[in-house]
Amino acid sequence: MILVIHGPNLNLLGMREPDVYGVKTLDDINQCLRELASGNNIELKIVQSNSEGKIIDIIHQSLEQNIEAIIINPGAFTHYSIAIRDALAAIEVPILEVHLSNIYKREEFRHKSVIAPVVTGQISGFGVDSYTLALEQAIRLIE
Amino acid sequence: MILVIHGPNLNLLGMREPDVYGVKTLDDINQCLRELASGNNIELKIVQSNSEGKIIDIIHQSLEQNIEAIIINPGAFTHYSIAIRDALAAIEVPILEVHLSNIYKREEFRHKSVIAPVVTGQISGFGVDSYTLALEQAIRLIE
Amino acid sequence: MILVIHGPNLNLLGMREPDVYGVKTLDDINQCLRELASGNNIELKIVQSNSEGKIIDIIHQSLEQNIEAIIINPGAFTHYSIAIRDALAAIEVPILEVHLSNIYKREEFRHKSVIAPVVTGQISGFGVDSYTLALEQAIRLIE
Amino acid sequence: MILVIHGPNLNLLGMREPDVYGVKTLDDINQCLRELASGNNIELKIVQSNSEGKIIDIIHQSLEQNIEAIIINPGAFTHYSIAIRDALAAIEVPILEVHLSNIYKREEFRHKSVIAPVVTGQISGFGVDSYTLALEQAIRLIE
Amino acid sequence: MILVIHGPNLNLLGMREPDVYGVKTLDDINQCLRELASGNNIELKIVQSNSEGKIIDIIHQSLEQNIEAIIINPGAFTHYSIAIRDALAAIEVPILEVHLSNIYKREEFRHKSVIAPVVTGQISGFGVDSYTLALEQAIRLIE
Amino acid sequence: MILVIHGPNLNLLGMREPDVYGVKTLDDINQCLRELASGNNIELKIVQSNSEGKIIDIIHQSLEQNIEAIIINPGAFTHYSIAIRDALAAIEVPILEVHLSNIYKREEFRHKSVIAPVVTGQISGFGVDSYTLALEQAIRLIE
Amino acid sequence: MILVIHGPNLNLLGMREPDVYGVKTLDDINQCLRELASGNNIELKIVQSNSEGKIIDIIHQSLEQNIEAIIINPGAFTHYSIAIRDALAAIEVPILEVHLSNIYKREEFRHKSVIAPVVTGQISGFGVDSYTLALEQAIRLIE
Amino acid sequence: MILVIHGPNLNLLGMREPDVYGVKTLDDINQCLRELASGNNIELKIVQSNSEGKIIDIIHQSLEQNIEAIIINPGAFTHYSIAIRDALAAIEVPILEVHLSNIYKREEFRHKSVIAPVVTGQISGFGVDSYTLALEQAIRLIE
Amino acid sequence: MILVIHGPNLNLLGMREPDVYGVKTLDDINQCLRELASGNNIELKIVQSNSEGKIIDIIHQSLEQNIEAIIINPGAFTHYSIAIRDALAAIEVPILEVHLSNIYKREEFRHKSVIAPVVTGQISGFGVDSYTLALEQAIRLIE
Amino acid sequence: MILVIHGPNLNLLGMREPDVYGVKTLDDINQCLRELASGNNIELKIVQSNSEGKIIDIIHQSLEQNIEAIIINPGAFTHYSIAIRDALAAIEVPILEVHLSNIYKREEFRHKSVIAPVVTGQISGFGVDSYTLALEQAIRLIE
Amino acid sequence: MILVIHGPNLNLLGMREPDVYGVKTLDDINQCLRELASGNNIELKIVQSNSEGKIIDIIHQSLEQNIEAIIINPGAFTHYSIAIRDALAAIEVPILEVHLSNIYKREEFRHKSVIAPVVTGQISGFGVDSYTLALEQAIRLIE
Amino acid sequence: MILVIHGPNLNLLGMREPDVYGVKTLDDINQCLRELASGNNIELKIVQSNSEGKIIDIIHQSLEQNIEAIIINPGAFTHYSIAIRDALAAIEVPILEVHLSNIYKREEFRHKSVIAPVVTGQISGFGVDSYTLALEQAIRLIE
Repeated sequence: MILVIHGPNLNLLGMREPDVYGVKTLDDINQCLRELASGNNIELKIVQSNSEGKIIDIIHQSLEQNIEAIIINPGAFTHYSIAIRDALAAIEVPILEVHLSNIYKREEFRHKSVIAPVVTGQISGFGVDSYTLALEQAIRLIE
Repeated sequence: MILVIHGPNLNLLGMREPDVYGVKTLDDINQCLRELASGNNIELKIVQSNSEGKIIDIIHQSLEQNIEAIIINPGAFTHYSIAIRDALAAIEVPILEVHLSNIYKREEFRHKSVIAPVVTGQISGFGVDSYTLALEQAIRLIE
Repeated sequence: MILVIHGPNLNLLGMREPDVYGVKTLDDINQCLRELASGNNIELKIVQSNSEGKIIDIIHQSLEQNIEAIIINPGAFTHYSIAIRDALAAIEVPILEVHLSNIYKREEFRHKSVIAPVVTGQISGFGVDSYTLALEQAIRLIE
Repeated sequence: MILVIHGPNLNLLGMREPDVYGVKTLDDINQCLRELASGNNIELKIVQSNSEGKIIDIIHQSLEQNIEAIIINPGAFTHYSIAIRDALAAIEVPILEVHLSNIYKREEFRHKSVIAPVVTGQISGFGVDSYTLALEQAIRLIE
Repeated sequence: MILVIHGPNLNLLGMREPDVYGVKTLDDINQCLRELASGNNIELKIVQSNSEGKIIDIIHQSLEQNIEAIIINPGAFTHYSIAIRDALAAIEVPILEVHLSNIYKREEFRHKSVIAPVVTGQISGFGVDSYTLALEQAIRLIE
Repeated sequence: MILVIHGPNLNLLGMREPDVYGVKTLDDINQCLRELASGNNIELKIVQSNSEGKIIDIIHQSLEQNIEAIIINPGAFTHYSIAIRDALAAIEVPILEVHLSNIYKREEFRHKSVIAPVVTGQISGFGVDSYTLALEQAIRLIE
Repeated sequence: MILVIHGPNLNLLGMREPDVYGVKTLDDINQCLRELASGNNIELKIVQSNSEGKIIDIIHQSLEQNIEAIIINPGAFTHYSIAIRDALAAIEVPILEVHLSNIYKREEFRHKSVIAPVVTGQISGFGVDSYTLALEQAIRLIE
Repeated sequence: MILVIHGPNLNLLGMREPDVYGVKTLDDINQCLRELASGNNIELKIVQSNSEGKIIDIIHQSLEQNIEAIIINPGAFTHYSIAIRDALAAIEVPILEVHLSNIYKREEFRHKSVIAPVVTGQISGFGVDSYTLALEQAIRLIE
Repeated sequence: MILVIHGPNLNLLGMREPDVYGVKTLDDINQCLRELASGNNIELKIVQSNSEGKIIDIIHQSLEQNIEAIIINPGAFTHYSIAIRDALAAIEVPILEVHLSNIYKREEFRHKSVIAPVVTGQISGFGVDSYTLALEQAIRLIE
Repeated sequence: MILVIHGPNLNLLGMREPDVYGVKTLDDINQCLRELASGNNIELKIVQSNSEGKIIDIIHQSLEQNIEAIIINPGAFTHYSIAIRDALAAIEVPILEVHLSNIYKREEFRHKSVIAPVVTGQISGFGVDSYTLALEQAIRLIE
Repeated sequence: MILVIHGPNLNLLGMREPDVYGVKTLDDINQCLRELASGNNIELKIVQSNSEGKIIDIIHQSLEQNIEAIIINPGAFTHYSIAIRDALAAIEVPILEVHLSNIYKREEFRHKSVIAPVVTGQISGFGVDSYTLALEQAIRLIE
Repeated sequence: MILVIHGPNLNLLGMREPDVYGVKTLDDINQCLRELASGNNIELKIVQSNSEGKIIDIIHQSLEQNIEAIIINPGAFTHYSIAIRDALAAIEVPILEVHLSNIYKREEFRHKSVIAPVVTGQISGFGVDSYTLALEQAIRLIE
């Protein structure tokens, strides 16, 4: 099973600021990921939360579930949540950090990721395809 | 309807550190705001939370409620919650940032607001009057 | 009597860069403030100057006049005039710092105010209403 | 009664990264603290949370309970939670900051504690003994 | 046609420092990419150079060739070659920045990419798969 | 008509520190500029002031005079006068920033110009010829 | 003749913030200096101004008067007036920088003097005696 | 003979990003410079290269040719090529640094020139005229 | 045997600045430590020195004595003595860094310890009890 | 009795680098100070040391001697000896910091004094006269 | 065989700026090194290049030649060529970094070497002798 | 006579941390240097001290002894002892700075040498050979 974590404000996707984040909703993305997963006989667990503590709890729970890889778009937590970083650092399965937009084209403070040093790799800037690529790669890694 | 958000630790107002934050309690402030609002036939929704995730949820909910303006005192989140900033950036109604104390007279780290670049305007340093001025201005803006 | 100080370049208001500063002229603002003041039986002294030294002189003169509060929009001096800061620090009546635009949405160097630590409070981002709110609050403070 | 707060990810103690945090579980630590407390006829209240908001709530509640001292290991929140700092600043009983590892031997960003300026003292680097020393000292302080 | 650019020192791949860069040689990677491309009826142009000027020339030539997308692993030039950045900024087809290793796990100076702000997206940390993912995405983008 | 503004201390030209600023006096420069202007049937208005406020006033007045271009050597104000910068930003005719010496060969603090981002172009390091080149270019721009 | 320049806000001396600047007025200081000067058969020229431009003009005029030394308390201009620095750098007589208070005990931004590198020496922290010592030394230097 | 050096990416002039660099091609500029030169009986040697090493070689060769002045637009090398700086520092003829755009209106990293401290002077922001002005001045300097 | 090192100025304890360092003298502290040690049949060697070189010598001598642990309050050397740090880094017994005051409540420069990365753990902020806790812990570690 | 402390390397005065420190030897200075002191019936205690620890010892001893003021030229220790700073902070008599040269005209690292915030005042830049002025002022302060 | 690499601008040695780099030409140095080598029956391969890419190629080629040690004077590339650093990091024979001048006596930006962390050792400041010492040491290391 | 100064902690050489500093003791090194010296009929004076003041004294004494060159390994003092720097700056014979390890491969704070700008040259990273090379070069320089 692969765990997909959507961080804060991603529930608004497709509804606000489409020029930055595109017109697809989070449901569209999830639908797309589920199809790709089921085509590969992979189970997905998808969660979205605006709460840092909740996201840490979910990461911890993965230790007791059959989670083989984590795909995470930490949203704004990318830039300051050392607590999520520490939670991910305790996980041994592959972790894939995903961003819809190219964060290096945006404000200076978005250029720094405190999460990046503890993940396997990052994919950013390809909109919804960032997620699809991550899922394809996650599947490859756990095979 | 105008949404008033009180950030972390503001529930302690009037009970602790009166030399910094004054002697009025949060209930006093809310009472004061409700009177001003009802005198202008404006409905108020007032919430206080110590949880960043909860505050983001409340901001998101405003999108589906008839919220015409947001008054927010982000408390300590002013200085690091990019997640709240992103939530506010997705809102199109006027947003008024409020601080009881003059944050520029306090510790260096309180001089920087990550929230400020996405709000309409700020009012700070006037104690409870900071809220009253914000509400007066919010009413003016939505008329 | 309340003293209103308009700093450098504010005499151009309404004539240049309306997208940043709005279409109202300084005369419009002053007219608006005078009406509000006379409705409250308050006398106003309004000055505009592009000279740092002149503004310091005016602040000093307030010590010998019946000035009960100062409303100041320091314009560009906000960011470097320690001399004006020192002049204001010698004044004991309430001081209200006003900005038409939300300075935190603009260039990095405009985010820092050397004036802020010595004033009572700040109001910024509400265009002409920043002044009106300040005057309302000043009247409240001196009553 | 003494309140012991374990911050984010400490529930994983002993289960992950034993080279950094040791092999004892949080239950082991708590057991150890309870024995020491009962030997001194002191009641303990122990909580662990991955949520910043929850920790702030717990700190606030201590104001209405008979809490005589707080021992807190803020985990990753040590480095950025100004909200927890502000909550602690409102508390008048002794506060003891505890770290299992010597945070100065680790990554640069772990060298800075935003919590430290508002606590009574810190103990770090002694593994589980950091907690025991803190409890011994807390008992001494409230006697 | 898709252009693949390998930056400085990548010709040593698989021959030196396998713990950082893996055991596959550049020829292995290219072989792998060519197979993927031909399976999609896409022509590939692959170049490697240790010379900044040569890489800029190649980027310029793409303007006169039927290049539909560029995949670039800028190697060490990632961190300082503003000249390559400017060359890429003049290109209108999709540009995909690729890194074999997770550069955020390495020295501080490798965390900053001067190239990133002008590309479409980045993929890093997945070894040879970083290239494959990029080619898959490039094909998707030009279809 | 072209406006030439000489900033603080330029009245001392040719009288002090000839190794830095050359031996020509300000009168020599002005004479030279007037000849070039009259040869092109261009009227010149030349002012020198040591006062920031005075220079802002002069810039403002240009809005009501038939000024077609401004040549300004801001002297020491180059490095900190945001007020002059804001005054120039309100002007729509071409603005040419001039320096006698190559400011990048001098003290670190002289390397930064707060004026530069709002002018059309800069010419520096050619002594009196910096002015002549600027006037030639100004004439070209207004033709 | 020795020139004594008092910078901005020094006209308020003895009237405001006596805990920082002492109780003596500027007249007291000047009286004191005149007595010391006349006792040494030295003529004094004393000026105070809140205007940077005015102070530069005064410094320039000293070139045409029989000024043998300059004593200057630049007040707040100490920290940013590069224009005054440049004016002083053009003067060849001894220049003595004076401060009433120990500026290193005050706010961080007061620790830096842009004036200091172009003066002969500094005397600070001795209240009115800072001036007296400076005058004694100036007399010694011109003898 | 005057040497004109065009740095990296300038061969794309007029073909890409005309809003930043204008519509004239490098051939247009060279044509324009050659006419001006021949009108003054000056021989021009013009080179463009995207290679730092090549540009250094050209600068070195000028030592053995009859080069009387160098006009250089270092393009992106302006900001980091200490090697070109060192090459120019070894040259004794006048060196004129030229930029088409006003680099101070662009990204922060473009504000710093490592070349500037070793040239005679700079001209920037006037588009093609930056070159013409430089050539006029170079001719004046070698006469 | 446990070695206790008191750094510079600690000989003044109890005699000066009691509001910062408390009223107990160094003799009081030492007496207190000796009692605790003898109660545990532990021998103590206690030294105080204001000399960095002397402290290094003492640390070196511990290599030839039967020192089982070191308790050190480096005083002001905490913040800059890399030489003491290097001496301690060569020691293999447990090292406990002690501070009487909470150094994070004091001046910015006291927040950084160059010693901390080479010790076992730190205890600070508990006055004399900081020493007692350290000794208790040292005894525990060597048992 | 007044204590005069000469810091490291001052014993070389007059023998090395006369262009920086002048031609007078330390004996010359001391002779000069003794004459001035005896003319005022003041006893002087003069010490020079290259050792930080020794200087701290001397400062401590002053607490038990009849020292009424301290004149100190901390030499290079000015810039980093927090230990000497702490020793001086424990002293209640006036402390006068003296420098022969104007340290602000020298290397950047010499512009910062860690001693300055704990002294009464500073005198620098007047060569041997810096000492004489300090002694004159010390005598004035203790009368 | 030992490889000697001379970086950019070193071909000008002895011809320009003799006060910084001495009067010996590169041929003189090479002659000197060859004599020393042949005296030790060591073969030398000596190259000079102004091109970063070329230098990387040469370093790579050493992997296929019988190179036993590398002596490199990276010239200006010392300060920014991460690409050369990465090439050297892939080499396992001893690498000796050489500088003619003491780079710490020169401009601030020359104090930082991005090459240093991957070499065996550095020798700088002894002019031509820097090379001779390096060769002597290289011979010692490969024996 | 050549003076060799070993700084703090070097007396521990070969006894502690052999992976960083090698297995040779200081006596081994000194023996080695003495042999090399006597083979060249050069007298050596060798001192080791952990005391900054002592090292300064030794440097001063060299002025009165027949010291023709100084070889110094300042150990940890390399990074902060401006006092030793000043002592060395007063010496006119060649000074050679030596380090056993390549300090650029170690902690960030070890990359900066405050001593380097006043020495003739540096040799680092070659273990004991660093000393031998330095002595060979010193002999060469004094011949």
